[in-house]
Amino acid sequence: MEVKEILKKVQDGNLSIEEAEKYFRRQPFEEMGYAKLDTHRKIRSGFAEVIFCSGKANEHLLNIFGRLYEQDGEVFGTRATQSQYELIRKQYPQTVFDPISKIIKIEKKNKVRKGKIAVCTAGTADIAVAEEAAQTAEYFGAKAERIYDVGVSGIHRLLANVDIIQEAHCVVAVAGMEGALASVIGGLVDKPVVAVPTSVGYGASLHGLSALLTMINSCANGIAVVNIDNGYGAGYLAAQINRLALS
Amino acid sequence: MEVKEILKKVQDGNLSIEEAEKYFRRQPFEEMGYAKLDTHRKIRSGFAEVIFCSGKANEHLLNIFGRLYEQDGEVFGTRATQSQYELIRKQYPQTVFDPISKIIKIEKKNKVRKGKIAVCTAGTADIAVAEEAAQTAEYFGAKAERIYDVGVSGIHRLLANVDIIQEAHCVVAVAGMEGALASVIGGLVDKPVVAVPTSVGYGASLHGLSALLTMINSCANGIAVVNIDNGYGAGYLAAQINRLALS
Amino acid sequence: MEVKEILKKVQDGNLSIEEAEKYFRRQPFEEMGYAKLDTHRKIRSGFAEVIFCSGKANEHLLNIFGRLYEQDGEVFGTRATQSQYELIRKQYPQTVFDPISKIIKIEKKNKVRKGKIAVCTAGTADIAVAEEAAQTAEYFGAKAERIYDVGVSGIHRLLANVDIIQEAHCVVAVAGMEGALASVIGGLVDKPVVAVPTSVGYGASLHGLSALLTMINSCANGIAVVNIDNGYGAGYLAAQINRLALS
Amino acid sequence: MEVKEILKKVQDGNLSIEEAEKYFRRQPFEEMGYAKLDTHRKIRSGFAEVIFCSGKANEHLLNIFGRLYEQDGEVFGTRATQSQYELIRKQYPQTVFDPISKIIKIEKKNKVRKGKIAVCTAGTADIAVAEEAAQTAEYFGAKAERIYDVGVSGIHRLLANVDIIQEAHCVVAVAGMEGALASVIGGLVDKPVVAVPTSVGYGASLHGLSALLTMINSCANGIAVVNIDNGYGAGYLAAQINRLALS
Amino acid sequence: MEVKEILKKVQDGNLSIEEAEKYFRRQPFEEMGYAKLDTHRKIRSGFAEVIFCSGKANEHLLNIFGRLYEQDGEVFGTRATQSQYELIRKQYPQTVFDPISKIIKIEKKNKVRKGKIAVCTAGTADIAVAEEAAQTAEYFGAKAERIYDVGVSGIHRLLANVDIIQEAHCVVAVAGMEGALASVIGGLVDKPVVAVPTSVGYGASLHGLSALLTMINSCANGIAVVNIDNGYGAGYLAAQINRLALS
Amino acid sequence: MEVKEILKKVQDGNLSIEEAEKYFRRQPFEEMGYAKLDTHRKIRSGFAEVIFCSGKANEHLLNIFGRLYEQDGEVFGTRATQSQYELIRKQYPQTVFDPISKIIKIEKKNKVRKGKIAVCTAGTADIAVAEEAAQTAEYFGAKAERIYDVGVSGIHRLLANVDIIQEAHCVVAVAGMEGALASVIGGLVDKPVVAVPTSVGYGASLHGLSALLTMINSCANGIAVVNIDNGYGAGYLAAQINRLALS
Amino acid sequence: MEVKEILKKVQDGNLSIEEAEKYFRRQPFEEMGYAKLDTHRKIRSGFAEVIFCSGKANEHLLNIFGRLYEQDGEVFGTRATQSQYELIRKQYPQTVFDPISKIIKIEKKNKVRKGKIAVCTAGTADIAVAEEAAQTAEYFGAKAERIYDVGVSGIHRLLANVDIIQEAHCVVAVAGMEGALASVIGGLVDKPVVAVPTSVGYGASLHGLSALLTMINSCANGIAVVNIDNGYGAGYLAAQINRLALS
Amino acid sequence: MEVKEILKKVQDGNLSIEEAEKYFRRQPFEEMGYAKLDTHRKIRSGFAEVIFCSGKANEHLLNIFGRLYEQDGEVFGTRATQSQYELIRKQYPQTVFDPISKIIKIEKKNKVRKGKIAVCTAGTADIAVAEEAAQTAEYFGAKAERIYDVGVSGIHRLLANVDIIQEAHCVVAVAGMEGALASVIGGLVDKPVVAVPTSVGYGASLHGLSALLTMINSCANGIAVVNIDNGYGAGYLAAQINRLALS
Repeated sequence: MEVKEILKKVQDGNLSIEEAEKYFRRQPFEEMGYAKLDTHRKIRSGFAEVIFCSGKANEHLLNIFGRLYEQDGEVFGTRATQSQYELIRKQYPQTVFDPISKIIKIEKKNKVRKGKIAVCTAGTADIAVAEEAAQTAEYFGAKAERIYDVGVSGIHRLLANVDIIQEAHCVVAVAGMEGALASVIGGLVDKPVVAVPTSVGYGASLHGLSALLTMINSCANGIAVVNIDNGYGAGYLAAQINRLALS
Repeated sequence: MEVKEILKKVQDGNLSIEEAEKYFRRQPFEEMGYAKLDTHRKIRSGFAEVIFCSGKANEHLLNIFGRLYEQDGEVFGTRATQSQYELIRKQYPQTVFDPISKIIKIEKKNKVRKGKIAVCTAGTADIAVAEEAAQTAEYFGAKAERIYDVGVSGIHRLLANVDIIQEAHCVVAVAGMEGALASVIGGLVDKPVVAVPTSVGYGASLHGLSALLTMINSCANGIAVVNIDNGYGAGYLAAQINRLALS
Repeated sequence: MEVKEILKKVQDGNLSIEEAEKYFRRQPFEEMGYAKLDTHRKIRSGFAEVIFCSGKANEHLLNIFGRLYEQDGEVFGTRATQSQYELIRKQYPQTVFDPISKIIKIEKKNKVRKGKIAVCTAGTADIAVAEEAAQTAEYFGAKAERIYDVGVSGIHRLLANVDIIQEAHCVVAVAGMEGALASVIGGLVDKPVVAVPTSVGYGASLHGLSALLTMINSCANGIAVVNIDNGYGAGYLAAQINRLALS
Repeated sequence: MEVKEILKKVQDGNLSIEEAEKYFRRQPFEEMGYAKLDTHRKIRSGFAEVIFCSGKANEHLLNIFGRLYEQDGEVFGTRATQSQYELIRKQYPQTVFDPISKIIKIEKKNKVRKGKIAVCTAGTADIAVAEEAAQTAEYFGAKAERIYDVGVSGIHRLLANVDIIQEAHCVVAVAGMEGALASVIGGLVDKPVVAVPTSVGYGASLHGLSALLTMINSCANGIAVVNIDNGYGAGYLAAQINRLALS
Repeated sequence: MEVKEILKKVQDGNLSIEEAEKYFRRQPFEEMGYAKLDTHRKIRSGFAEVIFCSGKANEHLLNIFGRLYEQDGEVFGTRATQSQYELIRKQYPQTVFDPISKIIKIEKKNKVRKGKIAVCTAGTADIAVAEEAAQTAEYFGAKAERIYDVGVSGIHRLLANVDIIQEAHCVVAVAGMEGALASVIGGLVDKPVVAVPTSVGYGASLHGLSALLTMINSCANGIAVVNIDNGYGAGYLAAQINRLALS
Repeated sequence: MEVKEILKKVQDGNLSIEEAEKYFRRQPFEEMGYAKLDTHRKIRSGFAEVIFCSGKANEHLLNIFGRLYEQDGEVFGTRATQSQYELIRKQYPQTVFDPISKIIKIEKKNKVRKGKIAVCTAGTADIAVAEEAAQTAEYFGAKAERIYDVGVSGIHRLLANVDIIQEAHCVVAVAGMEGALASVIGGLVDKPVVAVPTSVGYGASLHGLSALLTMINSCANGIAVVNIDNGYGAGYLAAQINRLALS
Repeated sequence: MEVKEILKKVQDGNLSIEEAEKYFRRQPFEEMGYAKLDTHRKIRSGFAEVIFCSGKANEHLLNIFGRLYEQDGEVFGTRATQSQYELIRKQYPQTVFDPISKIIKIEKKNKVRKGKIAVCTAGTADIAVAEEAAQTAEYFGAKAERIYDVGVSGIHRLLANVDIIQEAHCVVAVAGMEGALASVIGGLVDKPVVAVPTSVGYGASLHGLSALLTMINSCANGIAVVNIDNGYGAGYLAAQINRLALS
Repeated sequence: MEVKEILKKVQDGNLSIEEAEKYFRRQPFEEMGYAKLDTHRKIRSGFAEVIFCSGKANEHLLNIFGRLYEQDGEVFGTRATQSQYELIRKQYPQTVFDPISKIIKIEKKNKVRKGKIAVCTAGTADIAVAEEAAQTAEYFGAKAERIYDVGVSGIHRLLANVDIIQEAHCVVAVAGMEGALASVIGGLVDKPVVAVPTSVGYGASLHGLSALLTMINSCANGIAVVNIDNGYGAGYLAAQINRLALS
């Protein structure tokens, strides 16, 4: 359709060849020299672009942060450091930083959160990753229920929370070490389970690779896995699924 | 609630201690000696139990097949062999077998399929796994759109099908070798992408491990990964997400 | 002590130098050319030597089998093939062979079995390895309780059997795929858990390596791991622990 | 039984529905917000809960330490740092810290230690892990015999200590580099051997993975393996086995 | 030929045996004690020797830098540190240092650059490696077109630059994380693609190994891979190919 | 340019909107149901599409073979089996099959081969892969010089052939086992070296992974690596480079 | 010297330029088309060339076998199959074949064997590899003492043979599974130990990789390692060392 | 014999039972509490014990250093730090420390060095490891010839030194990155080659694992491999072989 319309306008002389050519070659992103900001993302995916702060140069971070804030009225950055926070706060004092999840953000007030996502962790050391997942999902409009420290070596703690987990549209299961949490949850609920291996552990945990393998090999149904420590990815996916359930 | 009700009935003398005890100790599965059939699964998850045929002894397979058919009026088995099909067909002549996906099934007639799942493959060699995914999703009530041979080394083939993919509630991306398909699709749609690495490839493909790593490391949002060649797992998860979108 | 006694006898002239020298240089094994049979093992460990049949030449197998039978009145072989069984049966018709566990044996009648070992499997495909463990433990005098198909993706099946498991002196947890069974059991009992990863699974199960890593990284206490598919090793260790509990 | 009794009381009117319901829904753990303290563990396993100090926030560590001390009159923490010790000592001056094993504890006086566990190391660099094992076993009531620096490249040092090792109910074999100690000990004793690979070594030791593989592949009987550097896990398991031998 | 000429001169008495012997035993390198400078390299390969600065002792670095500058009138060093730059600048104030690519150099003025190489990156974090490639190719006489941040998760950014990429004689594709960029480019152009995996990523990126595997398994034609983060190697190879295209 | 021309024609009324729309939506591939034949590839890359025969269903193979032959007057298939050859030969008797390289083809007569590629192998066991490379390059119009069995453990054999190798525009270095050939050649020539690891070897050769690692880590300049046993990929790339050198 | 002499002759007119040129360009190998036979090897290394039979085409094998027999009056081939033996025996009836070591050979009569090499194995399953080592060393003139089945899990069997082992000039230690034999021997002798990991084992033995890692990480002095199952390599090296000891 | 003599003396009354018993139970090591000093090693192996300084506590290091110096009149320590040197120098001012090889020692004056070992490196970055090897061999009485920076990517540098290498009794080949040096040397000499992979390299060098695999897979004869960066082990083994050649 759209192509037809453009061509029609060209035929009718209502659009110059140069303008039409631009259309067919258009760049739906903003060129910043060192980066190409995906400003059409919100239109395309319904979710605004997010900043992966780790390793960004100060000047670049500040510019991108500002540019996104300008455009959307809110910004969300993951894997930020305390010093990156200090930097941004000077220019945007309303910025908040959570030292556990390493999330830095300016969020619109009175945002409505809908649906429900359950974010579970095996141990207390997995909470940093879980918070990244929960806060990401919340930023993208989902309600997140936190159920922490319910690892499989004390299964009664998990069973005591089954009802809450079963009510969610999607469960995020965060676990390091042997990573068995996802399988047990997968057998208890009838909703998608997004499994997040964490680098928590030592020795043969191989920085999370063992937990990743455990989860990928899960014999339970309805489980899929994201990268090690990738709380953001899990939260994003959970928010997508939650949004589908509400649509 | 439920617990309260049971206890109330005991207190009121409407339920014997023996009956109540059974309730608290009940086994929501059927003991078959060599296996514990999860007969409550359909109630719990909405999806009936499925048979993983590979390596099952003939007698066991036949019994489980029969038991599930009896209970649900339909059965679904994955990774079946031609000879397993011959065996079952003798007793259940209405059984059908697909030699590509290795699926064996008796499916209820006039089943309504709703929503939409897009199942994409990078190459023609990935079709066996994709069919397992598509037919699983269809068995569980989803409509599946097949878009095969759209791998990233000829990106125009994928782009020509973007509209169809974008209409789905969930995309299953099946790819071996370098497994890059999931990332490209993840950047094109705003719906969950279930990535399935396949063991297609040679040399350093490491029987699918390379594709698995590619997918787990995807820089696109909204992607989660299942085990190598696990078409069933992807189809199941996609059907869950599709059902949520319809609810 | 023993050394002192020998020396005393030499001093007293009750033992020739040659005899004494033999003592200090003695070889507590029987030289068979191609193998050194550890005939003192029963005295040393309380458990007779066992034959690992896989890959043994027919003639060697037969000789070793005969030699051990002669000495102990019973024999026990693991990983035997049907054709090895045919071979041995010709000469020792009382031999029995279990095609599931691949165990071949002549066992003394009316052997008393004491204590209790619980052998659990995650799925039905793990039963071959579990049987190797259970029958090994039984051969070495333990009672074995079999609790099969209680994997973590249907946790209610395991919970329904907790009482039986908790009564054992030692639990053998056999699981492939994601191998999470050991952790859950470890959290439910206060006895040693011997975890056996199996090569059951596909894709990223890496022939049992994933399950091995899961079990080694277990966050539960009281768990130790043996080699992939090493049912014999688990059964032996469990029998040792059971014997200690009875002593 | 227990279930029956509760139900009987309800039927008899000796227990209110609310009380009974609590029973069936009870949470055998104490919710601390960031953690779920497993306060019933001692009843369940006979061994009190232990603190894995590494990475715990100061405030959390202090609270958990206090809470466990209050409940049991003693506390045991592994992988503590000097600065964590300073922190705790201020509030609990009776706390002791061992900089080699990194164990922090308040232990009841005049505790009786029974049975015997032998803790062996291949080299002097493995002593830190061995001490974690020995002191854990001692905390849980076992006597521990230390036999250090008896690695296989100087086999006479091990042979000179065989008698002491053979008297133990359980042997803990701690070794890095090529990890061969466990196999040699396994061939010398008739008791369970818990093998602990350590990250001692360089180059292809792969931070302990090589030693882990060596031990898992041991051709000796009666050996099982715990995670790399997991002295605590080995000590716990050894104490369990020792307790069984004494029962 | 050359051999024949030498021999001719010997036969004719125009060359002493000693001189001729030197020729056949000549060492086309300069012995510096700690290093053998390959001073004939420029003649042999057309490209001067380059310094890998990382880990070089200060004195050695200075000497080699000076020696090469003396000989060629220009020098090029990779993986230099700020402090190495300070050191060299004192003696050679005309030295320039690029803190992003870590390249240190003195380059002849008015150098002509010919042909065209396209250097593409998936993300902004890959730019350091890409600059090493681009500046290496430029030093060796190629024109380099930089096309950064065109990763596959936003495929429209890459497609908008296809024309520029297609005009190059050789494309360098730099990507971390899932490393899919090379495959997509390989399908869009008919020129050699040199793929450079980078260590950008986290979790299962395995410090670039995942991207390396992705690229090695590429299903597109005309792609070959260099070591992780080896921008220099890619730039060198691209310059060689570019030179061939110009010859 | 092209876009501009189309639009110009539309403006001028020389092209209907429908025709123009087709252009912008055109699918440069032919849909075959199970595959999307990339019929525009020859226009795009100058090299026709090639068939990867391994694992193709008979009917599919025959159809694709026929379709490509029809279009180009010649066909080239890799990794064919003897039985696939028998199948095709029945319909296309002019087909030839090389049992060493497993290449099946119908090639146009009197094809001109230009430039020069040197294909070297370390041992005789690497010749199958080398032939795949050489014949691929020849099919795409390059002259290929074969220099086999010049592995580094007998360096004089390689040195005796240096002149021939140095004359090529591109060298393909094929080696299994320790794969050191590429480095030595890389130090002897000033042309691109495409390294092909082969799965030749045993034990720790890890099916070619060791050779792949050796080649990727090469300290020589101008080397890039393709997948294990990927002779086709190396030949294709070498032909591309050769073509550039001739342009 | 040699170079000088040639040049002198050229100067003196005693050697034509053409002859001299041939000398400097000479090929110390015989070109067989598919292979370059290293006919100067015996002069260079003192040991004749050996045939790696595995995978050789029948015709090639026969030619090489014949060519070497012609030249040296004896031949030695490793990894031969029964059918290769049948083939060769037809033409060379004096050929002998050992089905255990897979060695095929014609050996000169009354060959003198000197010095002493001790070849030890951990188990009976390692004997095939050990025989390859022992017979290789014998072919190259060493005396080989076989000490089999002395694995570390029954250390008394090894200790009973220490005297014989200590008398050897070099020890070859062959072991699969956990591969600890080399370390124990290394600690008992003051001679070089060549360690050969074998692929004997199952599960986490990783086809010999675990044993290889064990041996490489050995804490004993004087140990070096060859490839998995590489009995030939170990025998060759041991023969070299033995020869040095006799020189 | 020895045993016989002792027994004879007991029989003859020339030796008390207590004395004889001590003999059979003697501990050929000195117990230092934290370590068992192998004081009989020099008698057993001809080479005195050496200190692996890395990670030793100051007090322990000083004691062991002193104890060995006292006993042998010289001491040799590897992997020492500058601060360990400062510590020891205070008490033993004659101690010397080489910051490149990290060797600390007091060596007897006028020690005679015999035979010849060639120590070769691929690059300048491998010199630290090579020096550890060379100085170890020298300490144990061998002459060491250093031939550095002769890596295979500039093969002429190696060939120019072939004569020197061929004269040695044993060659130590030290190389990181692709590690091909050992194979080339193995093909040039007829003496044992001890290959030392180093952790020099980046990216897919995997901290030396790639070089280790290259060397283990070498197709040349007479090569064996020690652990990554294990210069000491290579020097020790080379000294053993050199000693054999001199005997």
